[in-house]
Amino acid sequence: MEPIKLISVIGAGSPSPQAAGNAHEVGRLLAQRGYGVVCGGLGGVMQAASQGCSEAGGFVLGIVPGINASSANPYCTVVVPSGMGQARNLLVVLSGLGAIAVSGGAGTLSEIGHALKAGKPVISLGSWDLPGVAQAQDPAQAVDMILQAAG
Amino acid sequence: MEPIKLISVIGAGSPSPQAAGNAHEVGRLLAQRGYGVVCGGLGGVMQAASQGCSEAGGFVLGIVPGINASSANPYCTVVVPSGMGQARNLLVVLSGLGAIAVSGGAGTLSEIGHALKAGKPVISLGSWDLPGVAQAQDPAQAVDMILQAAG
Amino acid sequence: MEPIKLISVIGAGSPSPQAAGNAHEVGRLLAQRGYGVVCGGLGGVMQAASQGCSEAGGFVLGIVPGINASSANPYCTVVVPSGMGQARNLLVVLSGLGAIAVSGGAGTLSEIGHALKAGKPVISLGSWDLPGVAQAQDPAQAVDMILQAAG
Amino acid sequence: MEPIKLISVIGAGSPSPQAAGNAHEVGRLLAQRGYGVVCGGLGGVMQAASQGCSEAGGFVLGIVPGINASSANPYCTVVVPSGMGQARNLLVVLSGLGAIAVSGGAGTLSEIGHALKAGKPVISLGSWDLPGVAQAQDPAQAVDMILQAAG
Repeated sequence: MEPIKLISVIGAGSPSPQAAGNAHEVGRLLAQRGYGVVCGGLGGVMQAASQGCSEAGGFVLGIVPGINASSANPYCTVVVPSGMGQARNLLVVLSGLGAIAVSGGAGTLSEIGHALKAGKPVISLGSWDLPGVAQAQDPAQAVDMILQAAG
Repeated sequence: MEPIKLISVIGAGSPSPQAAGNAHEVGRLLAQRGYGVVCGGLGGVMQAASQGCSEAGGFVLGIVPGINASSANPYCTVVVPSGMGQARNLLVVLSGLGAIAVSGGAGTLSEIGHALKAGKPVISLGSWDLPGVAQAQDPAQAVDMILQAAG
Repeated sequence: MEPIKLISVIGAGSPSPQAAGNAHEVGRLLAQRGYGVVCGGLGGVMQAASQGCSEAGGFVLGIVPGINASSANPYCTVVVPSGMGQARNLLVVLSGLGAIAVSGGAGTLSEIGHALKAGKPVISLGSWDLPGVAQAQDPAQAVDMILQAAG
Repeated sequence: MEPIKLISVIGAGSPSPQAAGNAHEVGRLLAQRGYGVVCGGLGGVMQAASQGCSEAGGFVLGIVPGINASSANPYCTVVVPSGMGQARNLLVVLSGLGAIAVSGGAGTLSEIGHALKAGKPVISLGSWDLPGVAQAQDPAQAVDMILQAAG
């Protein structure tokens, strides 16, 4: 198979319906543009982005905290059971060319920190407002911005 | 995309020509049987198995020790730059349904230990001879054995 | 030896002289109060806090990113060479009862995220101003606050 | 405090009474010789070595797989809750100048592999019989051998 380029989608495990909808649309648009999604592989924003990407024919890599692949959401094409808990957050952002954060709390904050430390571009879609993180107004703009910065 | 099942291929970074040929054939046969390969993403056995799988149309996940995807061999479909050094050995074996070891030294030994600890079947093809590790005579037998145990 | 309770001191690798002085004083005060310091083991805020703690008779645990203990600053009592790069940030905050952040950039941000995710109190001394992170005016207040929250 | 040099003690989580006694004696002798113990922080060989070292006045570092320090055995001077599961095995061996293995199964095998890969000497006391691993007949010989190789 040809190499697949990934964008990290990070965010809340228990998002609002609007945030989940945004994550789904981000995943769909990335697939449409020829990119895959890498995420933490569980529910919420992770699952919505996985579903959006997968339903549009895209590739989804889920890097889950536990040792069992069965903990992943059903839209992952490939699952990496890291067995490393929150340390897997580092791998999620290192595996993408850049990251889109959709809402999210402390775990997402750790991922943004790791991404910025590694020199990856980060776009916030209703997520943390931090120096070095550009704000997008909607999923289409978030995808445009990350692909312009990292694609 | 449909979920892809992976088999871990582990082994020497600097194998003999015969071991490299065996790894290439293991990769090719796994692709032919509908499985992808997950490996440490670098050279030697890792690269040979990646090439064999990729050339036969299969999916290859390379989990490299460094933070840059560019360190991966060119046959990886997707690269996870773990940034975790040898700790990535754990992820390589957790990401497969089972592991085939093709020759290999101390790093391979750590992977076999992690695989057995996680309850994964391990087949040795000219690699370590240890309790709990079944010996295969050639690539075809190694692939048959791992798919029977884990497929 | 009796169990030793640790406080995480995180922050800039290349701090201003004032921030380095603050980190040194934080380390000194923690030792005086009977606590050890755990940090990333390298230079800057890490080294200043290590020195302050060590010179006051306290215990210092340095968890460095590389595989060699020799990369640690000379004030560490014990060095854990993690070999895990930035993933070691998670261990630095999990090993303390709480964290004091003294200035710092993206790496510190990842540590604050991991600490908050794990439910650890975090005090900022001229570091990130984030929800859930209390601000201290000087080293004495930072130490008082973290020991009240976590001690 | 002065720097403390550590020896890794690895081995079975559920050892025979004899193996537990051996681990206790290894810990005691290491403390007597001025060395601390680093181990996986849980029960069995880990706890026995921790107890032997601690009771003789030595320092014990326990690097546990979970995120809670409370999972450690009560003889640890300092606990690193890694939150990284079996990936913590790598840290256990990197933190010591060398390793003594007392019995043990697949987890111990992964630790021996990681230790050899990192160039650390490994002594087996009733543990795996592998190339590159020297066999000791009793705890005193194991301690002599590891301190000669690594001290």
